[in-house]
Amino acid sequence: MRIGIYAGSFDPLTNGHLDIFERANVICDKVIIAVAKNITKKTLFNIEERVEMIKECCGSVGNSEVTSFNGLLIDYCREKGVSVIIRGIRAIIDFDYEYAIALLNRRLLPEVETIFLVANSEYSFISSSMVKEVAGYGGDVSTLVPQFVNDTLAKKLFK
Amino acid sequence: MRIGIYAGSFDPLTNGHLDIFERANVICDKVIIAVAKNITKKTLFNIEERVEMIKECCGSVGNSEVTSFNGLLIDYCREKGVSVIIRGIRAIIDFDYEYAIALLNRRLLPEVETIFLVANSEYSFISSSMVKEVAGYGGDVSTLVPQFVNDTLAKKLFK
Amino acid sequence: MRIGIYAGSFDPLTNGHLDIFERANVICDKVIIAVAKNITKKTLFNIEERVEMIKECCGSVGNSEVTSFNGLLIDYCREKGVSVIIRGIRAIIDFDYEYAIALLNRRLLPEVETIFLVANSEYSFISSSMVKEVAGYGGDVSTLVPQFVNDTLAKKLFK
Amino acid sequence: MRIGIYAGSFDPLTNGHLDIFERANVICDKVIIAVAKNITKKTLFNIEERVEMIKECCGSVGNSEVTSFNGLLIDYCREKGVSVIIRGIRAIIDFDYEYAIALLNRRLLPEVETIFLVANSEYSFISSSMVKEVAGYGGDVSTLVPQFVNDTLAKKLFK
Amino acid sequence: MRIGIYAGSFDPLTNGHLDIFERANVICDKVIIAVAKNITKKTLFNIEERVEMIKECCGSVGNSEVTSFNGLLIDYCREKGVSVIIRGIRAIIDFDYEYAIALLNRRLLPEVETIFLVANSEYSFISSSMVKEVAGYGGDVSTLVPQFVNDTLAKKLFK
Amino acid sequence: MRIGIYAGSFDPLTNGHLDIFERANVICDKVIIAVAKNITKKTLFNIEERVEMIKECCGSVGNSEVTSFNGLLIDYCREKGVSVIIRGIRAIIDFDYEYAIALLNRRLLPEVETIFLVANSEYSFISSSMVKEVAGYGGDVSTLVPQFVNDTLAKKLFK
Repeated sequence: MRIGIYAGSFDPLTNGHLDIFERANVICDKVIIAVAKNITKKTLFNIEERVEMIKECCGSVGNSEVTSFNGLLIDYCREKGVSVIIRGIRAIIDFDYEYAIALLNRRLLPEVETIFLVANSEYSFISSSMVKEVAGYGGDVSTLVPQFVNDTLAKKLFK
Repeated sequence: MRIGIYAGSFDPLTNGHLDIFERANVICDKVIIAVAKNITKKTLFNIEERVEMIKECCGSVGNSEVTSFNGLLIDYCREKGVSVIIRGIRAIIDFDYEYAIALLNRRLLPEVETIFLVANSEYSFISSSMVKEVAGYGGDVSTLVPQFVNDTLAKKLFK
Repeated sequence: MRIGIYAGSFDPLTNGHLDIFERANVICDKVIIAVAKNITKKTLFNIEERVEMIKECCGSVGNSEVTSFNGLLIDYCREKGVSVIIRGIRAIIDFDYEYAIALLNRRLLPEVETIFLVANSEYSFISSSMVKEVAGYGGDVSTLVPQFVNDTLAKKLFK
Repeated sequence: MRIGIYAGSFDPLTNGHLDIFERANVICDKVIIAVAKNITKKTLFNIEERVEMIKECCGSVGNSEVTSFNGLLIDYCREKGVSVIIRGIRAIIDFDYEYAIALLNRRLLPEVETIFLVANSEYSFISSSMVKEVAGYGGDVSTLVPQFVNDTLAKKLFK
Repeated sequence: MRIGIYAGSFDPLTNGHLDIFERANVICDKVIIAVAKNITKKTLFNIEERVEMIKECCGSVGNSEVTSFNGLLIDYCREKGVSVIIRGIRAIIDFDYEYAIALLNRRLLPEVETIFLVANSEYSFISSSMVKEVAGYGGDVSTLVPQFVNDTLAKKLFK
Repeated sequence: MRIGIYAGSFDPLTNGHLDIFERANVICDKVIIAVAKNITKKTLFNIEERVEMIKECCGSVGNSEVTSFNGLLIDYCREKGVSVIIRGIRAIIDFDYEYAIALLNRRLLPEVETIFLVANSEYSFISSSMVKEVAGYGGDVSTLVPQFVNDTLAKKLFK
């Protein structure tokens, strides 16, 4: 069984993430979507909240597992028997950084392959940080994130 | 009347900004140059100082209005009857980020168009952060910023 | 009156071109859409055919003029009283090349300003050469070009 | 069974191509490596020679099929039951162009997914055209292409 | 005598830095490798530790001097009689930023030339920040940094 | 003695080329400026004309030699005792391609180092092909090329 992993901050999950995750399920037999714990990065939602939002929105897609991890991605790959790291790319800047990470991960664990998937062009401009900025000012992000994330954002920001 | 807006941090205004602003006045009947209030970003000059510097340097150019705003740019566009968002681009990295913002703003307010203007090549390397770094070490920035900004920087940094 | 020009090969006009042209009409009081005659470039459609397709698809948009020209764009701008050159940008490679052309044109005719508009993300991947390649192999390009262009392509390729 | 396709000109196959092909075999259950017939592009080797070189160098890797095709890649995907298009990316320029093609192919055949794999950094600078230029001047390309390709090039160029 | 300077944070020195430094010694008669003191940037190693690591790893290469400096690089160039600023570039994003800095430095001190050297492709993905992140999680960075840096990192992180 | 080579088509020499060549003379003890003979590329000026234009415009700069060569650049480097290949970079696309060539040349001849120099920003948009296109339509290129090249172009195009 070919297991893929789609890891990130997901603070919060966007329609772009969801699109990549659905595509990953076409490529792999099972896809783990994993929230990376990163204590140095300040986030709007805590780990549990982010995992919960992903479970609500992705839980029923294909053969998937929603989880979180600490430490190096490649160590977590080894632990979970992952053979494919999935990355979505939206833009050229993304790619450049992602390219370096992919080469580094290959050096550290050669048996895991990184593959890049392209989000639909209508999601190509969406990032979690933009979503947070727009929502923080009361802007409408309902076309940028899943319904459940939209509701959770509203509760978090304006409760 | 076609109203354009040129928004940014302007911390401080550079010759590159001034160049874009002058070009914008050729495209639009009126240009609002607006300092974006962003409480999370630490700035060298406060809003009033930045507005004052722009008034001194841009106030007499074309049919213009110098102001500041809080919140989402598109909400401010709606409030002021703006139909054109003006952005200057200096480099490829700029463009990539600006492209995403432009698509996002169109999604949020389709009737406002974003246009990109290119600064003169002699200003292509100037950014506010470089100006502050060079001036902070006592370097000469008199060819990078308007005279009034140069004087204000000197007072701010070495009074 | 602010006159803009949107020039290119348009071999053939695509939905991406049409989108940029419509946006240009928001920025300018009149927009000239002009097919550049370039004898060194081999084209599928001749000048007359390309002008006709544009007239059919763009002729009723805003205050516009469909035409063709020979020689340097800036000479044609001078002749027609154009003050704004309109360029659409789809991708980073586009931009880099366009940036050089914009600086060159400014050197040659400083009173004309080049502005860049961004096509809708759903058109960001469409180019005339791709349209010709796909259509040439019998592929369906009906979502990539206006209906009239689609019909004209079919007649040209499979008559 | 998940079938992938790795298509290109392969004029000739390089070590970079070989590297991507081997990685593709980790992702897919079967990989078709297919020479695209393109009558407008002048090549050094004809279709048969290119297929033969690939058979010699890739034929024993994983579960693979070496072939050639005419027309649109997506039509060939449909014919062969392919669900994954494999593309190698070496550089930023590559990516930009590949991104547009991937979006186009998705529009034409949504059920096929394009994935991008990254060649080893030591192969990142190798292209078929560079190989031909260097070999054409008598330069040593033995570290850039498989041994069989190196021998075939020598025979072709200096027989 | 042509004196070059290779300046940076070197927090810590990587094999990529070392590679550029060795190449710089082919271009210049003497190369100063200088740690830039930057009080606003949080570093893992203090200035003395970084200088010491560089002395251990680079001290015996060519005609070199290991040092540190405060303030603007061009002021330090003037003080030390430097005529060539050496920069390594790994990626496109690097280049864009470096290009702006090079133009700025030329404006500030025209008699000093900036040259860009390309690291070996096997080092193209290594950055100090990645090294720190991987090592911080207990990952193996022994192929990314010199032996002495590897040992010093281990002592610093897990003593 | 450190010998550098600045090679290219120079069809014709531009002010951007001249700028890079002058900078190269600061880095190297001697600079060979060499026209690459490439029979597959159609040029406006023949080899002798291009060498003559360079001799007129660069001949008195530093310790230089104007010449032409056939075959691989690295073979010519070996023949002339060159240790530094000089490349000018104007834009991001340039860099990407140049990066691949630099890595290829290093693989073929490791003892020769490639260095990249940045042209003045006012020359950043000038290329030989643009010069030819503008001049071919009777446009004024006198600020883009040296006076002698300007005169030679006029004679060639409108005699």
